[in-house]
Amino acid sequence: MTQHIYIFSPSSVVRDKAVIRRGVARLRALGYQVELDEAVFATHMRFAGDDETRLAAIHRAAASGADVCLITRGGYGLTRLLPDIRYKAVAKAIDNGMRFVGLSDFTAFQTAVLAQTGAVTWAGPALGEDFGVEGEPDDIMQACFEDLVSGQGEGTGWQLPRPEAAGAPIDLKGQLWGGNLAMLASLVGTPWMPKVKGGILFLEDVHEHPYRVERMLTQLLYAGILSHQKAILLGHFTNYKPAPHDKGYRLQTVVTWLRGQVKAPVFTNLPFGHVATKVALPVGAKVHLAVEGRDAFVLWGHRH
Amino acid sequence: MTQHIYIFSPSSVVRDKAVIRRGVARLRALGYQVELDEAVFATHMRFAGDDETRLAAIHRAAASGADVCLITRGGYGLTRLLPDIRYKAVAKAIDNGMRFVGLSDFTAFQTAVLAQTGAVTWAGPALGEDFGVEGEPDDIMQACFEDLVSGQGEGTGWQLPRPEAAGAPIDLKGQLWGGNLAMLASLVGTPWMPKVKGGILFLEDVHEHPYRVERMLTQLLYAGILSHQKAILLGHFTNYKPAPHDKGYRLQTVVTWLRGQVKAPVFTNLPFGHVATKVALPVGAKVHLAVEGRDAFVLWGHRH
Repeated sequence: MTQHIYIFSPSSVVRDKAVIRRGVARLRALGYQVELDEAVFATHMRFAGDDETRLAAIHRAAASGADVCLITRGGYGLTRLLPDIRYKAVAKAIDNGMRFVGLSDFTAFQTAVLAQTGAVTWAGPALGEDFGVEGEPDDIMQACFEDLVSGQGEGTGWQLPRPEAAGAPIDLKGQLWGGNLAMLASLVGTPWMPKVKGGILFLEDVHEHPYRVERMLTQLLYAGILSHQKAILLGHFTNYKPAPHDKGYRLQTVVTWLRGQVKAPVFTNLPFGHVATKVALPVGAKVHLAVEGRDAFVLWGHRH
Repeated sequence: MTQHIYIFSPSSVVRDKAVIRRGVARLRALGYQVELDEAVFATHMRFAGDDETRLAAIHRAAASGADVCLITRGGYGLTRLLPDIRYKAVAKAIDNGMRFVGLSDFTAFQTAVLAQTGAVTWAGPALGEDFGVEGEPDDIMQACFEDLVSGQGEGTGWQLPRPEAAGAPIDLKGQLWGGNLAMLASLVGTPWMPKVKGGILFLEDVHEHPYRVERMLTQLLYAGILSHQKAILLGHFTNYKPAPHDKGYRLQTVVTWLRGQVKAPVFTNLPFGHVATKVALPVGAKVHLAVEGRDAFVLWGHRH
């Protein structure tokens, strides 16, 4: 059966329509039925329409009956909408098989849906940045997305950096959650932050200097969130400007510090973040984390 | 009696010693006895010494018997130290008359001291940025600092923008608290955040785009902090880069939005932040806020 993908814009304005059109063409070429929300190109200041417009777009997506609802892009805009999202309607759509897919600013939506309803959404690509690229879309990203759409995906794997392979094999189960670190940190202490115990937390960010990454991780630490996780998976932290006065302070300094703060293992290199090669991850799903040597797997299929 | 000022570095490394020496000379010319902590120029990566060094500097300051302990500069570095600060020793020194003075990253210290002990510290200048300038230090900044050191200060006043003068006169009392918004937001949900009810909250920031200011205010809002304040005073939000795609979204947009979210009055133009003209404000003190026409006053003297 042809899968139906609904495209919507809950955050920043689409600045280049050609990117979105190219992405839509690519998805159609893959055989999907693609529907554009009526406000996909709406504009209000830096946003894809004013708050009411973007909120209505979310609710139209939830009511669309689509198999997959995919964001055009992230940016900023979901934070202000959180109190007015009809979470029960979103959860009902998810219960009927809908998969919401996105990243970055969309983490606010995903985290709030998890906190309010426990429903599973997908951390994955955005239409523009991932399918709208001028060259070919990344093949791993595309394969993971196709698995997600078809419902055939059962997990994902990646290679750890050599020094992380030294530990004993790991085999544990927990609730996978996370996404963009800045968005997660901005929800600490609010009703939109889920209380995940025994979780597997994954994090990524962009444009954030390592000292800011550290400050945000410190907030999760001091709020008691990190100590409740069974494992922490770090995706990519990209596109920040090192300062001449860093003098050896770098992202790795933060990772080393983090390992000294938590008992849970911290693994890096998760293929997720503001990078072309990104996997799709079920936010809120019970998953199985297996690490042996340099091979790490997150599994959510029926057979794991 | 000659007032004794102790200079210490709890955050980022001093990058230009000449700035600090100029600041020290200026304070000595004002008649103060100035003592430099032994680690004032310590260096560890981007920090003024490693965590133990900076922590020891804070504790030496608290044990110095000085009248005023003034930071060399802000930057980043206090966050990681918060669990290991000996708050009782700090509060005892304050109880004996010591005034801790600083801003920016120092907000973490001030907020944590307030949360843990209720003791009052001072949001005010930093030695380098304010007294170490090449030209003359700002005269309002200097006058407020001298009032603070002598203990003669009884309050501060400023002019509101014309549109804010339209409301009925305001006359209320509450606990003054606040400082750097990014630091405050990063403490939400942690043990270092005080639960101030009926407070008067002041905020400033630097290098933060209005959308980030909005996101941080939203965190304070969703965490229930803003609804417990009797008034919100906005200082200066400076030195961010507007984006070409902001399309009319600016700091004023955020202020207008904020006014729609809280019942408490929101006043701007407070002379505080990363600007030369900054007053000194007692963080944690019971103060009196009076507004009539364009004139706003925060008073903490005995006669108010």
